[in-house]
Amino acid sequence: MNMEQAILKQAKEAKAAALQLALVAPAQKDKALKAMAAALWSRRNFVIRENAKDVVAASKAGMDDAMIDRLTLDEKRVKSMVDGILAVAAQKDPVGERLQTLRRPNGLRIEKIRVPIGVVAVIYESRPNVTADCAALCLKSGNAAILKGGKEAIHSNTAIYKVLKSALAGAKVPVGALQFIGSTDRAAVTELLKLDQYIDLVIPRGGEGLIRFVAEHSRIPVVKHYKGVCHIYVSDKADLKKASDICFNAKVQRPGVCNAMEKMLVHARVAKKFLPSMVARLREAGVEIRGDEATRRIITDAGKATAEDWYEEYLGLILTVKVVAGVQAAVDHINTYGSRHSDAIVTQDTKEADVFLKGVDSACVYVNASTRFTDGGAFGLGAEIGISTDKLHVRGPMGLEGLTSYKYQIYGSGQVRS
Amino acid sequence: MNMEQAILKQAKEAKAAALQLALVAPAQKDKALKAMAAALWSRRNFVIRENAKDVVAASKAGMDDAMIDRLTLDEKRVKSMVDGILAVAAQKDPVGERLQTLRRPNGLRIEKIRVPIGVVAVIYESRPNVTADCAALCLKSGNAAILKGGKEAIHSNTAIYKVLKSALAGAKVPVGALQFIGSTDRAAVTELLKLDQYIDLVIPRGGEGLIRFVAEHSRIPVVKHYKGVCHIYVSDKADLKKASDICFNAKVQRPGVCNAMEKMLVHARVAKKFLPSMVARLREAGVEIRGDEATRRIITDAGKATAEDWYEEYLGLILTVKVVAGVQAAVDHINTYGSRHSDAIVTQDTKEADVFLKGVDSACVYVNASTRFTDGGAFGLGAEIGISTDKLHVRGPMGLEGLTSYKYQIYGSGQVRS
Repeated sequence: MNMEQAILKQAKEAKAAALQLALVAPAQKDKALKAMAAALWSRRNFVIRENAKDVVAASKAGMDDAMIDRLTLDEKRVKSMVDGILAVAAQKDPVGERLQTLRRPNGLRIEKIRVPIGVVAVIYESRPNVTADCAALCLKSGNAAILKGGKEAIHSNTAIYKVLKSALAGAKVPVGALQFIGSTDRAAVTELLKLDQYIDLVIPRGGEGLIRFVAEHSRIPVVKHYKGVCHIYVSDKADLKKASDICFNAKVQRPGVCNAMEKMLVHARVAKKFLPSMVARLREAGVEIRGDEATRRIITDAGKATAEDWYEEYLGLILTVKVVAGVQAAVDHINTYGSRHSDAIVTQDTKEADVFLKGVDSACVYVNASTRFTDGGAFGLGAEIGISTDKLHVRGPMGLEGLTSYKYQIYGSGQVRS
Repeated sequence: MNMEQAILKQAKEAKAAALQLALVAPAQKDKALKAMAAALWSRRNFVIRENAKDVVAASKAGMDDAMIDRLTLDEKRVKSMVDGILAVAAQKDPVGERLQTLRRPNGLRIEKIRVPIGVVAVIYESRPNVTADCAALCLKSGNAAILKGGKEAIHSNTAIYKVLKSALAGAKVPVGALQFIGSTDRAAVTELLKLDQYIDLVIPRGGEGLIRFVAEHSRIPVVKHYKGVCHIYVSDKADLKKASDICFNAKVQRPGVCNAMEKMLVHARVAKKFLPSMVARLREAGVEIRGDEATRRIITDAGKATAEDWYEEYLGLILTVKVVAGVQAAVDHINTYGSRHSDAIVTQDTKEADVFLKGVDSACVYVNASTRFTDGGAFGLGAEIGISTDKLHVRGPMGLEGLTSYKYQIYGSGQVRS
């Protein structure tokens, strides 16, 4: 069997399993999740041993220390995967919820019922824990999962998959519901993305390159975010102490993630008062400052922001600063250069806040809080399978509900249409 | 300006207008809709005169009578478009609805608010009334619309568009929110489908060929249904009188639409009793019967169903009949050959009905009613812009709510992430 045939076979198996899994009772799915968690813990040494192969290969390939650290599994990190699976098991099962009941004059009763999507493919290149997280979220929401991880973690991912799959087999859940694509060839991704007859949704997770590749080649609906170019606008009506704390947190607390601040907009009226101490505080934490002309008149040693800077997601300790004329200018800038992810205003004026919240076309818009809260956990939605900057199906953090669709069940007593 | 540049310009205008339109008050949008309706009625002679050009061209091109009839506009049909626009104006405005409020322990208040999607492109090849319907639904839901109709109705569509656009200009609604692609070249569709930076959603309406073309070429999310291969399963526990009326209605009342029955499945135990009279009744209405082996042992002069028949949407007076062993066989057949649109069971047994409703993986599943009710109007959801057999974003009839997304508005008082 060649690679195409193997992938087609897996997709067909996943679809057949999805139809079964949609009917499995919540308690049975939770039992399977607990079995997965237990198996992962009891076979942690196997997983860590396999992971070591990836770490050695990454070292030889000259991967940088931060990336090797993200790849590495130890007992503590396996424990955290185990806890993640158990946390998903403890969440409310979304399937079967009655979302709406419509009663028609002719006596028809129409019920809108939450159901699983079917088959979800996740294509990722991040840490090995994604394998466990996605397997758990898909199972809980009644979806068959097809997982395709990156080459750099192939031994780790394969080991985790094997352990989880063996646990499924013992838990009376259709084993076809968990599939893992062993090929590390990018052609395997292209192949997968053609199978719209069997796969209902694709979620790419990783760098912008991978995500653009998936979006351009997929015939299957994709939920994605390319990047997070998050802005904070400090109004002339801001509490500047709050503004400083919020901006500092959003830039520095964890600069490598998609909800970190990448651009700071400051009202012209407060720029001279606000910028010097803010920039000093950020620089002390190692942040490089780039600015537009007006910023550089105040922070004379700031780098010069290029046209590309306004679009760029640094994922590191760089911040580009612009002085703007007011809230509308801030809104327009964000809608032009932003990534529709998370943007904030700091202001004490509720009317101005409203203009910002309504005007900025992003998944999450904040007043007087750090953009770093865009996260399924921080929102209280439970674990997330990804974040969407699209506007279709799901926007912002995507948790269990984002992994469901609905169907209409219509109850009649012989009604016909006239 | 060449065609590509013209389309890009229109898409950019639509996006800019969408950001404005999202903020327009409900009353202002309704005023614009009423102005559109009034303009269409007062300029009906112009529209009918332009339509005559399409009708003449269609005649010359040898288009069949049914299609020419669908293309033709008279005063009554313009009136019906006008009424359609007014009905949309009278619906509840979906924008701004608070869908959920999450209060976090740190004091953050997270509000999930319904917002327009942004820019919606509709690519269609059906009757000219689609131009008016889609323009009205998009405006009501706060979306900019880019309309691209078929060559056969180009004069009619252009005339309707001009009249509607002029009405917008007088109603203080951003005129860029309504765009019409004048080119009848299919390359214009390909061009449009690349513009994911400006367009948020594409809705193709027309034959399966058009829809597949759009789905394969689009970088923009697509909501679609390829076809409606609707089944009715007559159980051995059915009230056979009801079954006959339901099947007759679903096949004969309007055979050319996507929610008409195309396949009838009958339990082996009642086939001999049910089929002869049912087939006689259908044949009297002009229906051609094709059957599997078991059916043809009962209806000896039925045509032989080929392998392709089970997948085919006839959109006409043909019905393919299969004898099955029970509800699970019916469910399996539908999930294999169906189109995930609308399927029904006729049974007096509620447990059996439940197996069918849960097991059939379609947008709308019925017990004891005709599949013909799958329709925004019949569901009480108001006018529909299309029907989706996808499972993402919207499934089944797509009305105003289907034309919305949501955003999270987060209210803080200085919260930062620790």
